[in-house]
Amino acid sequence: MRFSLSIAALTLAIAATPAVAQKATTIPESAVANAATLREKALASDLGWKITESLTTEVGPRLAGSEADARAVAWAVAKFKQLGYDKVWTEPVTFPKWVRRSEHGEVVGAHAQKLYLTALGGSPGGTVEAEVVRFPDLAALQAAPDGSLAGKIAFVDYQMKKMRDGSDYRNGGGIRGRGPSAAVRKGAVAFLMRSAGTDNHRVPHTGATRFEDGLKPIPAAALSIPDADQLARLVALGPTKVRVALDCGFDGEYTSQNVIGEIRGSGKPDEVVLIGGHLDSWDHGTGAIDDGAGIGLSMAAAVLVKPLKPKRTIRVVAFSNEEQGLYGGRAYAEKYFKDVSKHHIAAESDFGAGRIYAFSSSAPDYAKPAVEQIAKALAPLGIEYAPGTGGPESDIGALAARGMAWGYLGHDGTDYFDLHHNADDTLDKIDPKALAQNVAAYAVFTYLTAQSDGDFGSAPKAAEPRER
Amino acid sequence: MRFSLSIAALTLAIAATPAVAQKATTIPESAVANAATLREKALASDLGWKITESLTTEVGPRLAGSEADARAVAWAVAKFKQLGYDKVWTEPVTFPKWVRRSEHGEVVGAHAQKLYLTALGGSPGGTVEAEVVRFPDLAALQAAPDGSLAGKIAFVDYQMKKMRDGSDYRNGGGIRGRGPSAAVRKGAVAFLMRSAGTDNHRVPHTGATRFEDGLKPIPAAALSIPDADQLARLVALGPTKVRVALDCGFDGEYTSQNVIGEIRGSGKPDEVVLIGGHLDSWDHGTGAIDDGAGIGLSMAAAVLVKPLKPKRTIRVVAFSNEEQGLYGGRAYAEKYFKDVSKHHIAAESDFGAGRIYAFSSSAPDYAKPAVEQIAKALAPLGIEYAPGTGGPESDIGALAARGMAWGYLGHDGTDYFDLHHNADDTLDKIDPKALAQNVAAYAVFTYLTAQSDGDFGSAPKAAEPRER
Repeated sequence: MRFSLSIAALTLAIAATPAVAQKATTIPESAVANAATLREKALASDLGWKITESLTTEVGPRLAGSEADARAVAWAVAKFKQLGYDKVWTEPVTFPKWVRRSEHGEVVGAHAQKLYLTALGGSPGGTVEAEVVRFPDLAALQAAPDGSLAGKIAFVDYQMKKMRDGSDYRNGGGIRGRGPSAAVRKGAVAFLMRSAGTDNHRVPHTGATRFEDGLKPIPAAALSIPDADQLARLVALGPTKVRVALDCGFDGEYTSQNVIGEIRGSGKPDEVVLIGGHLDSWDHGTGAIDDGAGIGLSMAAAVLVKPLKPKRTIRVVAFSNEEQGLYGGRAYAEKYFKDVSKHHIAAESDFGAGRIYAFSSSAPDYAKPAVEQIAKALAPLGIEYAPGTGGPESDIGALAARGMAWGYLGHDGTDYFDLHHNADDTLDKIDPKALAQNVAAYAVFTYLTAQSDGDFGSAPKAAEPRER
Repeated sequence: MRFSLSIAALTLAIAATPAVAQKATTIPESAVANAATLREKALASDLGWKITESLTTEVGPRLAGSEADARAVAWAVAKFKQLGYDKVWTEPVTFPKWVRRSEHGEVVGAHAQKLYLTALGGSPGGTVEAEVVRFPDLAALQAAPDGSLAGKIAFVDYQMKKMRDGSDYRNGGGIRGRGPSAAVRKGAVAFLMRSAGTDNHRVPHTGATRFEDGLKPIPAAALSIPDADQLARLVALGPTKVRVALDCGFDGEYTSQNVIGEIRGSGKPDEVVLIGGHLDSWDHGTGAIDDGAGIGLSMAAAVLVKPLKPKRTIRVVAFSNEEQGLYGGRAYAEKYFKDVSKHHIAAESDFGAGRIYAFSSSAPDYAKPAVEQIAKALAPLGIEYAPGTGGPESDIGALAARGMAWGYLGHDGTDYFDLHHNADDTLDKIDPKALAQNVAAYAVFTYLTAQSDGDFGSAPKAAEPRER
């Protein structure tokens, strides 16, 4: 996950609800009965786990544009086919390729010691040795006078808080996104931040940053949490010099692929229920919770639905390069925005593999009966109907902004930012039982929406500017 | 901590107990009363924390023989003086210097990916690319026919178990110590092991190994626990090649120092109660639990005892290079073995900063009344009297083998091997309240033994061969 949930998109979708009365959307009782069986079958299945294990083991880390990106695409094509999907294809996604070659950090002088840090995606390379100026948060850095950090390294030392919905990522991710540009404006020669994370291990969290137009990029990196603690203590003792040496940067363009698999609908094959996750990962971990789980659970959910011969088509999308700027989701939206009405509803999983605890949807009032039927079918999984929460996750956001209806199945993200974008994002961190619960939730949602009589409000809408 | 507790030394000490009747060792009731006040004062003090914070922050990692070794010695001398010790001095300790320059591991081929590994201390450098053969434990490797691993990499994949007394380190540490030599005998070109650890993070655990005489050393490294999981999965899928590139090895000799501080005894200044820890650490973490805490708690305990004007001298030893072969402890024993009788009793802390839960001693039967008085004074700290458990920790083992009496204050080590010898051994892992309890236990033990009427059985003994 790179971006937090877009409240803007949620509001827009609600605003798009037609005010005129319309026939209620409902789900046939036979489908509701089938969903109960499907749910239990999914809970007993390890298919989601097996797929996630296969991706994270056989491909491993899969940074967009790296050698492993192509292997991940080949893996997804082969896996869709092996799982018996009716149709499998790829669609090109082009983006600037960012490469990490090496990275080192150290305190120099009387307290010389190594610092565990990692370059932010999008950072240029460079070697800098300079005194560190610490700021408790982004606002403090932004409040410093322009030019006041000339020749210094800016260090934003904000500690993210653990929350079930991960909402303090607004601060942590915000520092990562906007901190480097703020540092440039103040004259800094490099940018350091306490990782946007909630763990206490020596595994710094990477993630994309972007320099504002017209600013000269500077080396930007995140320290592990214990290293940020250490640097804060050293800075409190007296002037502290740090050496940051990053060898990384942009290197041309790369064309990867969105990989798509479909289970063809038996009644309304042209209408699509879209689920998915993103295929790429950051390079330190093996991308298990971000977002191997999203790939595994969506691929598995559709397979479990298949024997029920869903009325509408189930489309599973393994999106390309989410991490560095939602490239796969944006390419998808660009290609399909004219077909918004054919996208019955969509849900993406890009917030780990914790138990899903909340369900909501953008559906308008006339579809509320169907939404409540789905909520009732999800309740035995410990999932609460929570209208007004959540939103369309990462890659489906672009098409949701063009009017596509979405469902939200909210994972418990309490521990998500212990692992997010760091080396610890590995298979052992996934609880197989929680992942099976995720698969069950997605299978139930996918099947019931595919069977509905009536729609969930997908309708073309003018493009809105999206916050990056 | 490098070595597990020496049961052999314990047995020998018990065997040395004289069978003849002797005047009972006891502790004056006035001292027992003082100890209760001392205990509460220590629990309320943050001195142990402050010292540990200072060492781990200002010096940071302090690999024996590195530039930081000299800084650590200077820090200890200055800290003893600053704390008001009556006498401070150093004693040379010479050892082969082992240097780590760089280390890389990766799976090559169809599942190419980085592996997080670290060279074992004592490993030679070298680059090897070869197929991996997995063994579930050391016995399985030892059972392989000689020469059967020609051109292969041996991988011992034993998962250490969490235990309060850390006793499964017998297996984990045993693999690290003896695995590389076993691999050489089978013809292997490199040795890999699952880290001797109980965590699930990408922080491999280093530690010393030693090749048996006459064997040609091979590169030897430990994988992090998640990397060992991953390699085991890949090997199960089919033949798996790994590239290991280590730049490390021995580089001449280095002379460091044991650093010693004394609070001079008011009544029997020539008799010494010795407490301490080791000053060196491995290079990945900042040596907080191993063994900054041992230094911090022993330095603080003696300071807290000082106002009580102890009868005997309190000697705090910050031992040099424990990690690579107990060099400081052995140098100390060599210098002082003729003065064993002047070493009233000794206790070392080298098992982290978890709460102390057990107390025992090598003291003979005639000293049991005093030992029971100490046990009673420790009981309010949640410490159980557990005769027959424990032993002399690491550096004091050599002199204990020559007849020095010892006390054992056993830390809860349940989480110790999450952090032992890896990058996660940092200050944040220490609970300040638990460390204060440790200081209180050491202060009470030190003061009461210093006040005893009668001895704890220290008496010269012929040197016994020590297991390395």
